[in-house]
Amino acid sequence: MSDIQRSGSGRFSRTVIHNNTVYLSGITAKDLTADVTAQTQDILNQIDAALTEAGSSKSRILTAQVWLQNIDRDFAAMNQAWDEWLDKENMPTRATGESRLAAPDVLVEIIVVAAK
Amino acid sequence: MSDIQRSGSGRFSRTVIHNNTVYLSGITAKDLTADVTAQTQDILNQIDAALTEAGSSKSRILTAQVWLQNIDRDFAAMNQAWDEWLDKENMPTRATGESRLAAPDVLVEIIVVAAK
Amino acid sequence: MSDIQRSGSGRFSRTVIHNNTVYLSGITAKDLTADVTAQTQDILNQIDAALTEAGSSKSRILTAQVWLQNIDRDFAAMNQAWDEWLDKENMPTRATGESRLAAPDVLVEIIVVAAK
Repeated sequence: MSDIQRSGSGRFSRTVIHNNTVYLSGITAKDLTADVTAQTQDILNQIDAALTEAGSSKSRILTAQVWLQNIDRDFAAMNQAWDEWLDKENMPTRATGESRLAAPDVLVEIIVVAAK
Repeated sequence: MSDIQRSGSGRFSRTVIHNNTVYLSGITAKDLTADVTAQTQDILNQIDAALTEAGSSKSRILTAQVWLQNIDRDFAAMNQAWDEWLDKENMPTRATGESRLAAPDVLVEIIVVAAK
Repeated sequence: MSDIQRSGSGRFSRTVIHNNTVYLSGITAKDLTADVTAQTQDILNQIDAALTEAGSSKSRILTAQVWLQNIDRDFAAMNQAWDEWLDKENMPTRATGESRLAAPDVLVEIIVVAAK
């Protein structure tokens, strides 16, 4: 077996595992008509599913980057969805910034790295 | 003992250690009335402290991301503070971009990953 | 031998290797008068060279971040250059955002982490 496991298709993998570390692609919401709260919740659910499939979980996330299309407007709502989802006994490190994303209605994108 | 060590509180950890690698949250200055030089120096001092606490040091940083609120205006001043602080025998990789950050007076945020 | 190998000079390393993982600095094109297609191709060639020197290759990239100065205008052209270069059997995870970069004519910057 290779020392690197990959899953997903398209122009990048959804998940790559190496050296007991799980790298996820930046994840965006499926329903881009939703507001930032629902987009964030959708992303966090997708992260849960991808980590479970990789033999990890949200309690084993090491670090996260959160990108918001409009940080002044959406920081508080994203944080509320984050706080409700978070395993407060096992929090990752995090950084949050503002970036225009792949399409104008992508309000939030989250990148995580986790321990397998 | 868990294979993951975490420190910090709030909505994310300040430091997470796994697999001999230390992940720090994006760090911003404490005094947000300061100019970009002082904000960068403050951040670099905080990085030093967090790495020491984690059993690492600036000489063991692997990679850094630097985010500036205004890259055209502040790139040179940030670089000067960086150059004064840097262990030139043991430089990390780095990438620098522009991003509006958590509040309008956050002029710079730095994310580092280090070896324990 | 140290547990960390570094190459490059200036104010950051070009490549840092630790724990079987290769960290590259954000790479920009050498010819900044070129369009986004040529800038992306140039960056991907530089990534190939840096990874080869580090004992890795594009087939062992774990994760990538792509930053575009203008994502609405340049996303499709960057993706086309990416798709032509990619080892489709061994794709990294990826995230793409918009960021003003180190100089106004830097249209794209790519950061990768690979397995040695």
